[in-house]
Amino acid sequence: MFGTDAASVSSSSVHAIGIDIGGTKIAGAVVTETGEIVAEQRIATAGDPEAIVEAVVTMIQSLATGRDIAAAGVAAPGFIDADQSTVYYTPNIAWRNEPLRDRLRASLDLDITIDNDANAAGWAEFRFGAGRGMRDMTMLTIGTGVGGAIVSEGRLFRGGFGAGAELGHLKVVPDGLPCGCGARGCIEQYGSGRALLRLANEMADAGGIGLALAEARARNGALDGHVVGDLIATGDPGAIHALEQLGSALGQACASLAAVLDPQVFVLGGGVAVAGELLLDPIRQSFRQHVPARGYHPEPEFVVAQFANDAGVVGAADLAREHSRAG
Amino acid sequence: MFGTDAASVSSSSVHAIGIDIGGTKIAGAVVTETGEIVAEQRIATAGDPEAIVEAVVTMIQSLATGRDIAAAGVAAPGFIDADQSTVYYTPNIAWRNEPLRDRLRASLDLDITIDNDANAAGWAEFRFGAGRGMRDMTMLTIGTGVGGAIVSEGRLFRGGFGAGAELGHLKVVPDGLPCGCGARGCIEQYGSGRALLRLANEMADAGGIGLALAEARARNGALDGHVVGDLIATGDPGAIHALEQLGSALGQACASLAAVLDPQVFVLGGGVAVAGELLLDPIRQSFRQHVPARGYHPEPEFVVAQFANDAGVVGAADLAREHSRAG
Repeated sequence: MFGTDAASVSSSSVHAIGIDIGGTKIAGAVVTETGEIVAEQRIATAGDPEAIVEAVVTMIQSLATGRDIAAAGVAAPGFIDADQSTVYYTPNIAWRNEPLRDRLRASLDLDITIDNDANAAGWAEFRFGAGRGMRDMTMLTIGTGVGGAIVSEGRLFRGGFGAGAELGHLKVVPDGLPCGCGARGCIEQYGSGRALLRLANEMADAGGIGLALAEARARNGALDGHVVGDLIATGDPGAIHALEQLGSALGQACASLAAVLDPQVFVLGGGVAVAGELLLDPIRQSFRQHVPARGYHPEPEFVVAQFANDAGVVGAADLAREHSRAG
Repeated sequence: MFGTDAASVSSSSVHAIGIDIGGTKIAGAVVTETGEIVAEQRIATAGDPEAIVEAVVTMIQSLATGRDIAAAGVAAPGFIDADQSTVYYTPNIAWRNEPLRDRLRASLDLDITIDNDANAAGWAEFRFGAGRGMRDMTMLTIGTGVGGAIVSEGRLFRGGFGAGAELGHLKVVPDGLPCGCGARGCIEQYGSGRALLRLANEMADAGGIGLALAEARARNGALDGHVVGDLIATGDPGAIHALEQLGSALGQACASLAAVLDPQVFVLGGGVAVAGELLLDPIRQSFRQHVPARGYHPEPEFVVAQFANDAGVVGAADLAREHSRAG
């Protein structure tokens, strides 16, 4: 997906810039109409909201230099309003009701749109990745938390206030585990990377098939995603059991989501989804057990996302290009 | 809404026919572009699937006689495919993969579309009722079961296979009460009219504030919707407590649905929603308690549906007109 040589790209192709503001880094890229990256930049995220705006402006200016750019899209975590102009709230960055689009437009002679980062990543999968050729897709991004994106009839589903597709906050257990969102029992607490570590620690405490997890924990001081991921990759039964519990919770959530959204395909992305079929199999099993009215309507596919780290920038660029075209 | 006198309707107005196939009756109407009914028919639903098709054809022919009709829409319970042509499955009628649209078209010289009945009712509320002026609406129909409809960006949300918006089958309790759909813990088992009767019977068994419910049950042989509704209307604390428990479950479901769909408004319809604020208040309270990231994004309104019995025919007619226009 990445290359600085743009020779293969037609000069008539319309490029767009995508920026992905993460908690630790800001990534930016020039993206072709077919989702290829022709130039890329990354810098550490400054803590100060003002400095972040300046860094994004500088990155866009730098990426645009000498290029014909149709539009720039900025993906950020948190809640973006339905007009794609204001950031209501971002975790980790002190933005509250920040008029990000207008602030960027004041410094840039470009059509700017902003979008939630999970929405941008989902759009990249829909247009150029695991959801390509589909019309209705639901994506769950299993990272530290659980992110979501919905595409319906080929359009990104944002919700009435721009805060839709927060699929990690589907409540799956009444009065369940407390969630960072202030509610309880969200699927994020049962189906995320953080939940996998909790389940792995429970297995380590339990002994038996959790022995290798307990040994790895003692060796490393604590279990982290790499340690558990390595044990999963080697087929350790304790680590795989933890992953299966995660898949079971996610499959139940997907059954509920299918009743609401009825997608043709569920795309599973994020760090935990690199486990591939080891995660998809328990999700499918649990889904079949819990989906309403099984056998009376078609069932969705479950596939793993194709993009690794570039989904945010590619999706943000493509959404900005679409928005710019629609006028 | 109802009148046989069409004098107030411009002759240039495009009429459409809406048919609503229910378990006990088939209703049909000629509907104007502004959602007014200018003629209406009702017959009992025959048990035989063949006879139902014939009855629908006859009703459409009769309603169309002497009128300029743009299209006819047929609403039916169950799963309709994404092309709006085939009924995958209907409860109470023995249709399985029934090519209903083609069968109707074979006998009628009209553009025909079919839609799920809850979707049609939701569309009527969106276009002409409680959701008018909104862009993103979620409707829950609280009848014997719980039906659903979703409008997103002014479009009816059907899902990838046409089986979306089955909001009654959002799972709210893991390993909860068995549901008619084959799954467990669906909101239909905690938020429907049937659930209200279960809760009212529990109150009647409990004594105390359930005394009036127990007396009404003894007098009538059993509690039904009318008896419980009458006690709610008179302010009986036991019946109202049962309704509040229903509202609490529905509010939790709406909090999950808001995370996914983020509507501007939740419309509550169906027989139980005639309780009005007595139902809406506990829903709002429970919603506020359970909605994720409260205070960081706008919140939806909760309102009661405006149509009583005509939502299905009005919505089906309007959807058919839209479909016909879109070509």
